[in-house]
Amino acid sequence: MIRRAVPALTMLTLCAASAAAADKPATPVAVVAAARASEWREIAADDLLVMTIEGGRRVVIQLAPAFSPTHVGNMRTLAKAHWWDGTSINRVQDNYVVQWGDVTEKKPMPPGLSPTSSADYVQPIANRRLRVTPLPYPDPYAPSTGFVAGWPVAMDGDGVWLPHCYGFVGVGRNNSPDAGTGAELYAVIGQAPRQLDRNIAVVGRVIEGMAHLSSLPRGSGELGFYTEAEHKVPIVSVRLASDMPAAERPRFQVMNTEANSEWNSFTHYLRLRANRKDDFYDRPAGGVDLCNAPVPVRPVP
Amino acid sequence: MIRRAVPALTMLTLCAASAAAADKPATPVAVVAAARASEWREIAADDLLVMTIEGGRRVVIQLAPAFSPTHVGNMRTLAKAHWWDGTSINRVQDNYVVQWGDVTEKKPMPPGLSPTSSADYVQPIANRRLRVTPLPYPDPYAPSTGFVAGWPVAMDGDGVWLPHCYGFVGVGRNNSPDAGTGAELYAVIGQAPRQLDRNIAVVGRVIEGMAHLSSLPRGSGELGFYTEAEHKVPIVSVRLASDMPAAERPRFQVMNTEANSEWNSFTHYLRLRANRKDDFYDRPAGGVDLCNAPVPVRPVP
Repeated sequence: MIRRAVPALTMLTLCAASAAAADKPATPVAVVAAARASEWREIAADDLLVMTIEGGRRVVIQLAPAFSPTHVGNMRTLAKAHWWDGTSINRVQDNYVVQWGDVTEKKPMPPGLSPTSSADYVQPIANRRLRVTPLPYPDPYAPSTGFVAGWPVAMDGDGVWLPHCYGFVGVGRNNSPDAGTGAELYAVIGQAPRQLDRNIAVVGRVIEGMAHLSSLPRGSGELGFYTEAEHKVPIVSVRLASDMPAAERPRFQVMNTEANSEWNSFTHYLRLRANRKDDFYDRPAGGVDLCNAPVPVRPVP
Repeated sequence: MIRRAVPALTMLTLCAASAAAADKPATPVAVVAAARASEWREIAADDLLVMTIEGGRRVVIQLAPAFSPTHVGNMRTLAKAHWWDGTSINRVQDNYVVQWGDVTEKKPMPPGLSPTSSADYVQPIANRRLRVTPLPYPDPYAPSTGFVAGWPVAMDGDGVWLPHCYGFVGVGRNNSPDAGTGAELYAVIGQAPRQLDRNIAVVGRVIEGMAHLSSLPRGSGELGFYTEAEHKVPIVSVRLASDMPAAERPRFQVMNTEANSEWNSFTHYLRLRANRKDDFYDRPAGGVDLCNAPVPVRPVP
């Protein structure tokens, strides 16, 4: 069904492009640009965490309450309490993570945080009525992968979980069985460390300002922690978009990943990510990694 | 055979560690630290490219002549001609590449460069007498993967090629059939863009100073190129280690990847990368991505 849909989609995509581009094979970027307005869904303001760091640099994180409800609940509580204001980015380890939170480990927690456990790492299949768009390529870390409600997912017979892709945000913790509160966070800045999947709660992804994190100086201490002599990057504020004045709220859309319509730009995009063939690419790979087909996200036009 | 070797190796590794550590499960880091001296091989000085950028920051690249002989030959010619001196880093695209070379595209090439072609992207199986240590996990981009002579490789029935992993260096080019000379180079700074495999020549990997590239400010121009208003990072010099005074040469060792000895730290390391289980990890993945099991490299002790 996916295969049959491609010629029609290609034609329609090309019709939407300029005459000059009509000679060229479709690219993932062109398919996304040509997607219909109805193929985008606005992200709820309650699912956007806006972090402002030193110099007014803004990082926006989309939360994933459907996959990590307890941790995301805690993060909303922490944001409403302005708990992260005055904390800092304390660790930057190359090809791994940028980590932030309370370096003193003494800042009192606000009331109302829920206890977490390793059961929160995987959502049981039985609890879900979500539709999966499969990614039909092998994965070294999970029996199957795909996309659910705008998120990449890995799956086995028991459940579904978010993968540690570039830009994804996880919850720092001490040794197991500790599962972290959601106060100590990190973002992936290198090759997807999928070995962390199901060992740590993934709570969202950076959708704006990723370069403000990934280009930070690496820490010279153990595990990339900044030493006393190095500059920890101050966090000015962290707010839910829903708690910001309407005029200041960032607004984003995510592309629909459900393969349930005749017109489906996302599955076309996936096919092209897996089979690049244009003026630059001679040899299509015939596959794509779960973390190398990011779900398109854009500011509300 | 790999399986049987593990208990003995674990025991020996633990014997080499401290008494306090003897209670803990082996980790990849501990296995590498405990490898015998005979399991390391020094990298030839002719295979080390030493790039010094602004501020005296040093980046060392290990060349892969066995996989890209023509391009690597050209790079040695360019280094001997001091061709890169005075060029610059011109592009930094987040989660993709850092690229350097002659931004004017007018600098005359030295004599002696060999023509390249897309045939250089893959080494035919028939030409190789190299031993492959297989990585027994599925890969979305190739029928099989493994390690050859200290390098990760992807393979099909026809040939073998180097993958675009984090820190790997490829040859910039124009549209196909152009295959690049080796003068315009980039290093991967994000999720492995494996769709480029077999479409571009991979010529080596960064083995020291990667953070000097990955933490550079991202360019605001198209594809992450620095605009006129942004600072291109000057390249002071690029030399083969073999052309440097002996006292100044960096020296590195790479771990043997051949699984042909009874004592084999590398296969043990691979197993642990795929099956993390210690105080921090509760759920071993049971697999690991080709680009997430970097071959250990270290300065000569």
